[in-house]
Amino acid sequence: MVEKENVLNDHKLHKGKIEIVGRVEIETKDQLSTYYTPGVAYACMDIKENKDRVYDYTMKGRSVAIVTDGTRILGLGKIGPEAGLPVMEGKALLFKKYGGVDAFPICLNTTDEDKIVDTIRNISPTFGAINVEDIETPKCFKIADRLRNELDIPVFHDDRNGVAVVTLAGIYNALKLAGKKIGDVKVVVNGAGAAGIGIAELLSYAGARSICVVDTTGAIYEGRQENMNYMKEKIAKITNLEKRHGNLTEMVVGADILIGASTRGAFSKEMIQSMNEKPIVFALANPEPEIPYNDALEAGAFIVATGRSDTPNQVNNLFAFPGIVRGLLEVRAKGFDEFMMAQAAKVLSKSVGKKLAKDYIMPDPTDKNLIVKLAADVAAEITSAAMQHGFARVNVEKEKVAREVKESLKSYRKMEKFIGKR
Amino acid sequence: MVEKENVLNDHKLHKGKIEIVGRVEIETKDQLSTYYTPGVAYACMDIKENKDRVYDYTMKGRSVAIVTDGTRILGLGKIGPEAGLPVMEGKALLFKKYGGVDAFPICLNTTDEDKIVDTIRNISPTFGAINVEDIETPKCFKIADRLRNELDIPVFHDDRNGVAVVTLAGIYNALKLAGKKIGDVKVVVNGAGAAGIGIAELLSYAGARSICVVDTTGAIYEGRQENMNYMKEKIAKITNLEKRHGNLTEMVVGADILIGASTRGAFSKEMIQSMNEKPIVFALANPEPEIPYNDALEAGAFIVATGRSDTPNQVNNLFAFPGIVRGLLEVRAKGFDEFMMAQAAKVLSKSVGKKLAKDYIMPDPTDKNLIVKLAADVAAEITSAAMQHGFARVNVEKEKVAREVKESLKSYRKMEKFIGKR
Repeated sequence: MVEKENVLNDHKLHKGKIEIVGRVEIETKDQLSTYYTPGVAYACMDIKENKDRVYDYTMKGRSVAIVTDGTRILGLGKIGPEAGLPVMEGKALLFKKYGGVDAFPICLNTTDEDKIVDTIRNISPTFGAINVEDIETPKCFKIADRLRNELDIPVFHDDRNGVAVVTLAGIYNALKLAGKKIGDVKVVVNGAGAAGIGIAELLSYAGARSICVVDTTGAIYEGRQENMNYMKEKIAKITNLEKRHGNLTEMVVGADILIGASTRGAFSKEMIQSMNEKPIVFALANPEPEIPYNDALEAGAFIVATGRSDTPNQVNNLFAFPGIVRGLLEVRAKGFDEFMMAQAAKVLSKSVGKKLAKDYIMPDPTDKNLIVKLAADVAAEITSAAMQHGFARVNVEKEKVAREVKESLKSYRKMEKFIGKR
Repeated sequence: MVEKENVLNDHKLHKGKIEIVGRVEIETKDQLSTYYTPGVAYACMDIKENKDRVYDYTMKGRSVAIVTDGTRILGLGKIGPEAGLPVMEGKALLFKKYGGVDAFPICLNTTDEDKIVDTIRNISPTFGAINVEDIETPKCFKIADRLRNELDIPVFHDDRNGVAVVTLAGIYNALKLAGKKIGDVKVVVNGAGAAGIGIAELLSYAGARSICVVDTTGAIYEGRQENMNYMKEKIAKITNLEKRHGNLTEMVVGADILIGASTRGAFSKEMIQSMNEKPIVFALANPEPEIPYNDALEAGAFIVATGRSDTPNQVNNLFAFPGIVRGLLEVRAKGFDEFMMAQAAKVLSKSVGKKLAKDYIMPDPTDKNLIVKLAADVAAEITSAAMQHGFARVNVEKEKVAREVKESLKSYRKMEKFIGKR
């Protein structure tokens, strides 16, 4: 565990964690007049003629805005946009190191939904994608959904989409080992926050026909009056179609899969014992899962996954977000959809290859070479999926994308070392 | 002159000119948990407790947003936010290389004054300063003025303030050589765009009591009905207090200083011949001045300055904006005012030292060591001025600032070389 004093000193020493540098030298007069006046006017006029050329000549095609309003920073809650900035800078580091993506933190001085949507729309020309981050529910859903309708660039919501992709990857592998099919299983998702909702949405898209999302009020169903919101209404239309009522304990009975995106201690051994045979338990609450890994196994779970790195099967969104956004940028995507997410999940699930086992349904997050390889594979798959679904502004060669992602991550590693030695 | 094809190819090759990199390595598990979860939470909570600590732990204290709405990009006019991005990236390169400032382009998808003000206010938590760039008049004045009232960070408007600082520096030296005092001279400024207005404002602050701003309609005076706007009304309150009417030719008669921030060919030899003895002519239209340097001399001008690098006395805002913004950031400024601008102008005027001559009233823009030295001196002076005027959040040592600016520019030069070799 890192010490508070060290964290604060290190942050102070560097005055933040990211910086903006040139990609070119401007030392000679010729360089200056190529990259600034008067030469730069040629690039400007070429873009004016055809707006899509902004991807050719500028940073747009490499850049994502990490947007937060400071209302749900990590597990810390509503701490404000300034206090959220250290996290957004950290996220930008990860985007660069594992996706070769230039991510810039936009911490908003407003928590109003309309103003957030307006602001992001207004600053969108600089960016090739938007990453919605650490905004409280249910506002975050509405913001992401509205932006998807309004913008001509993809909107990625990592808390909702990234976690869902990695979870689906794990579920694919768990089902393979259990010998069950996604269309046949009964799934219970505990938690209707960004992660729970995202997981339920993506499982539904991937073919799960019986999903029940449970919140503190109990099972969510269409027509429920208590404790509903925009997103719960929406999820109620595609889950729990039998409109069953009841609390978590009641809903879990007979389930094949139990997924927690809720809080420490939310699952009991008894719940797992009440599930169908070969129960699959994903206890994703962070840092303490809904039930400890070993307790879940003892209760008879066939496969257990958590968000922790100290037990097997870590569900880590680091495998998803850098590659997904890099892929979206490579193809200059106009949008982002569940098909792309599901394709990315397939790549991740297949990546475990012959190592597939009850304690190895997820790629190993400590294997750095593997992270690089998977970022490249996910990015390539996303480009291919975007082309298939008509979201690509340009056609690219999948293998070339994979190669270039790897090269860019290698190149950045060199720069990171240079920076580390400064 | 650079070729169109080369400019476009170079821009394409690099996919834009700036990128975002880490200031730290995140290779080990310890580094990751210091700069991201769980360690980063310490920095977040410390900022939550005291918002000003965001300057200690994040990029805020190094960052400026370069904001444009694409309505007045270079001399190209209203070409849109995407087409403006190559210029903003170029400007960011200059901010970094000559000020060590991390500048990020924000190209706005709206040209509405209220929406621009709202958007900039909403994204301000990430930035330590705002640079308003290439926004059409008179909107740009209103936007900058409103933001200055609303934000707790400084708002710099380079077209208006940067040019004014460098011009005032040149005027100080020209007056010295002419043996005249700023309080006694008669000044005519041709052009009521951002530069013309900025120059008139700053000259007025610096003690010039007789200034007349002339636009295409003629002399601007309080109560004029034709072709007025927010800013012209404002400038009419502090200039041309005698409310003289007339066109440029009429206004110039007997003037000591004629400054053009207008268009090629706007000044004639006859105008210069009609001026007071030892006429001082600043013909700043770009790339072609209001009157060519030699023509102005032939007409009897005592001192001539232009925006061009191929004749003496170039008025180049590169001497001003990087150092000014760096100084504002060093002191975590709450605002920016004319006192700071005038102090910066004094530093620049004194910098020519013993070389002061009719063809050397401005520092030499081709001398790179001089640019670095002046950026450091200007930044240091700005911190001192900010402290004197109560705009500083922290007290700093002027000499230390100068030293650190120099060091940071040296360090970036190393990185620039590394980048150039990639």
